[in-house]
Parts: sequence; C-alpha cells; structure tokens
Amino acid sequence: MALVRVGSAKVLIAVDQVVEGVHFRPNTPLDLVARKAIARNVSDIAAMGALPAACVAAATLPSEMPLEDARALVDAVAHWAHFFDCPLVGGDTAVHRSAGGPLTLSVTVMASVRSDGVITRRSGAGAGDVLLLGGAVGGSFGADGLGRHLHIEPRVAQAQQLIDALGAKVHAMIDVSDGLGRDAARLAHASGARTGRTLQARLRGDRIPLRSGATLRQGLCDGEDHELLAAVDSAVPIPAGWTAIGSLVTPQPGDTRGCVVDAAGVEQDASDLGWTHG
Amino acid sequence: MALVRVGSAKVLIAVDQVVEGVHFRPNTPLDLVARKAIARNVSDIAAMGALPAACVAAATLPSEMPLEDARALVDAVAHWAHFFDCPLVGGDTAVHRSAGGPLTLSVTVMASVRSDGVITRRSGAGAGDVLLLGGAVGGSFGADGLGRHLHIEPRVAQAQQLIDALGAKVHAMIDVSDGLGRDAARLAHASGARTGRTLQARLRGDRIPLRSGATLRQGLCDGEDHELLAAVDSAVPIPAGWTAIGSLVTPQPGDTRGCVVDAAGVEQDASDLGWTHG
Repeated sequence: MALVRVGSAKVLIAVDQVVEGVHFRPNTPLDLVARKAIARNVSDIAAMGALPAACVAAATLPSEMPLEDARALVDAVAHWAHFFDCPLVGGDTAVHRSAGGPLTLSVTVMASVRSDGVITRRSGAGAGDVLLLGGAVGGSFGADGLGRHLHIEPRVAQAQQLIDALGAKVHAMIDVSDGLGRDAARLAHASGARTGRTLQARLRGDRIPLRSGATLRQGLCDGEDHELLAAVDSAVPIPAGWTAIGSLVTPQPGDTRGCVVDAAGVEQDASDLGWTHG
Repeated sequence: MALVRVGSAKVLIAVDQVVEGVHFRPNTPLDLVARKAIARNVSDIAAMGALPAACVAAATLPSEMPLEDARALVDAVAHWAHFFDCPLVGGDTAVHRSAGGPLTLSVTVMASVRSDGVITRRSGAGAGDVLLLGGAVGGSFGADGLGRHLHIEPRVAQAQQLIDALGAKVHAMIDVSDGLGRDAARLAHASGARTGRTLQARLRGDRIPLRSGATLRQGLCDGEDHELLAAVDSAVPIPAGWTAIGSLVTPQPGDTRGCVVDAAGVEQDASDLGWTHG
C-alpha cells in the first residue's frame, strides 16, 4: 500500500485484481469471485495496521455474460465491501468486444491511518525480533478449486488488537499471501534492506500452527492463507491468538537464504517454497 | 467521483478503465493507451473542481505481450500520471492465462477538495443558468482511430480559474465525454432530479465552438471531447476562454427532452446524439 497526502490528510491506497483463469477458475461462483477481490485487498489493509475506508471497483465482463450475472457480480462486490467495512463508493464496467474474454475485477481500497499514527510495514523489523503468526496455515487450495483462497478472512480486528496491546513494539507485519516461507523471507529481506543488514527468518517447524489435514510443507508453501505474520520486540509477552513460530536473526556471512525452517531437526531453505501468481 | 471521509479528511475517488477493442483499437501505441487511461480520469477530477492527488493502476496484459512492452506500458502510465500532476503510487499487473486476451488498464484516481470546500457536481444547476463551454468540440475520432480521444487535455487549471473567479456561482460542471448533447442533457437531468423539477438544456447551434473541420452534428455527437461544460449564474460576466452556448430552462409540461439545439432556426432533440461506450 502507498501512503499519500491528499490535501491535509494521509490516506493509504492499494489496487489489486483477480483475473479468471489466473486467480480463480472459470465457473467459480461470482459471489466468491467478488469476495476474493475485496478480501485480499482488505487483508493488505489489515497487515498495514490500517482501517478500511472505502473502495472502488472496475470489472471487464465477458461479452457472453448474461445481464443478470453482471448485476449479481456488482451486487456481490457491494455486499462484501460492506461486509468487510470497506464500502463500495464507485465503479466502472466494460464488456469485452469479442467472445471468450476473461472476467477481470480490479479493486482499489483506501484506508486510514490509526489515530496514534502507527503503520506496520514489512520493513520495520530487526535481528532478535520474534515472529508471531496470527492463525493456522496450509491447505488453502482445495482439490475442487474452491478452497479457502476464496474464503479469505481479513484480520483487521486482530491486527488492531495487537497494535493496541503492543504499540510500536510491533515492528513489522505482512499477510501471508504467497506462502509462509516466501512471505517470511520477504519480511526479512525488506527489513534488512532498510537498515543495510542481511536478515533471515528462522522458523521452528514444530511450532507452526497447521490447518486440519495440512502438512508442514503445505503450511510453508500454500499461498493465500492471508493470516498475519508480525515481527515484534522479543521482550513482549505473546498475546492471545498469536503463536511464536521463530525469530529474525543475522545469518552467517554469505548465507543469503531469507527463510530457513527447522523441520524435525533438519534445516531447510523455505525462502522460495511459495505460490507464484500468474 | 465519490466523496469519501478517510479518517479526518475528505477525499474524492473514481475509477475508470480502458479496454482494447472497446476504448482503443488493437495496435494503438502503448504510450497513447496510457495517456488516455490517465487523462480521462484527471478530466473527471477537473469537472468536479477538484485537485489531482495520486493514482494507482491495474493492468491485465495479453499473454503474448513482450516483457519490454509491459515495462514500456508501466513507464508510460507513470509518465502521464506525473505529467498530469496525479502521480502513480501503486499498481498491479496480471497476465491473461490464454492467448488473445485484450489489454485492460484500470486507473483509480484520488483528488482533494479545494480549500474553500467548493465542489462542482453535475446536479447543482437551476432554470435560468447560463451554459458555458470551455473549448471547441467535434471531430474527436480521427478516421485512423488515432484522433483526439487519445490526446485528451484535462482542464484542471481552467476549472480552477473559473471557480476562483466565480466561486459558488459555478452551479454545476461536467466534462463532455459522451457527446455535448448527451452530456448537456445529463447535467439538466441530474440538476432537475435534485430539486424535483424538470430541466432542459437549450443550446444555440450557431454559438457552439467547433473544432476545425467539424460539423455541428459532430460537435453535438462526438464523444470524448473532454472539454468542460459549466452551468453558472446568469448574472455573471462570461470569463475569458469560455463561450455561452445556451441556458437551462423549465420545459413545457410533457416535454422530456433533456437537450434541444436551435440549428439554423430548426429545433432538434440532441439528448441522445452521443457516443455510447461498449
């Protein structure tokens, strides 16, 4: 998300899109497409420690889509935007000129900064910080393509509670959208780059909460969990609802791995075990 | 555009998109596609009497688009956003899964309200108001598909000067994006609906400034002129750069035409002489 000055105010803004065939399969229920498009944006807001304000959406519709489906899509976008406290205030629809064009839905969200000014970026952490995970991971893609990635629960309230409790001792935060290993590596990389030091996320495999039926590998790899990963001061007590799954360390010289995991005593590179969107 | 409260501030936001095959022809230079996507949004800001703040963009790229073209498109969007004082602060790109998917570019703009709080909507006008046009119209579509609709000049400064000079006596404003006749009818309809009275725009054909080579019919019909049409108090002097082309009236009972034009003594209905985007 970008922080922008608009007149006298600071506003966070971000855009994200879902494309048929890339982010969801053809024939996915439109209600779930709308939910995903809104929820992944609101999850970004949650990770910034910000508060949703409003959104706008632009849809490009298949030329063969019936009018009632187009209306249902717009209604569903408005519904989920309202549901996630980020009301839809504007939109634009266009129709593909030729048949076969994919449904595309882009959503732009605006968010406000907390009144105490705290913003949690992915780049604020340092060596020694404890890594907290706000939920369980793994198994976000069901075999039928209708898995949890279509039922994202943005963790706005959970993020606010953490910052309420710990304030500026929450050094960095990210939502796990491309796999825990990859996103932990990103947080380590962004935080290290900011101070010119190399940082590495070291995770304890036995501490990572997994969703029912998920393997550790799925917990590290599956994208679109959208749980929060926070780096906090090591001296704070672990708040309820969060699990300490590792820490940020200064790696040995030459060790460029962003995230390693101790899996039953065996150290593995988890930096690139993730989901790459098309 | 929607006016949204974000924290303690008021922010205007709008989204608009351009789709290959709908808003521009295949093989249109990417630089002009980017310009159009930004400029039509900034033109909306101008019409609201607002000031551009920042934008974000989302692009869905053809799978066969070379990487250097994708980079050139992103660079062009950033260039034109900066050029029109609405800097690009974020974006998202996705690639169509299968070949032949059209290039789609959606742009969301944020704008700030003038410090005196004046906002010019299309719904603030009343009977007796004079209609001012800020430029010449007609001929926006060249025979080669590379006409002026790809070279929109958002009239932000012109709108600000008008409001600086006339203040709240600028009752309503719209940018001509779908044809002068149609957009004048829209302004009349929106303003009438707000007060529960029917309004009609009456234009003098001989007063409408036409671009070189354009006929009156083209001046009334061609979309995407993106000049400003303002409704102002009839007692004010006409500012430089603006032309009085007619007025808003209360029509005869049962006359539902939104815009009529006196063309060489013959009255024509111009309400629906416009360009409908796909």
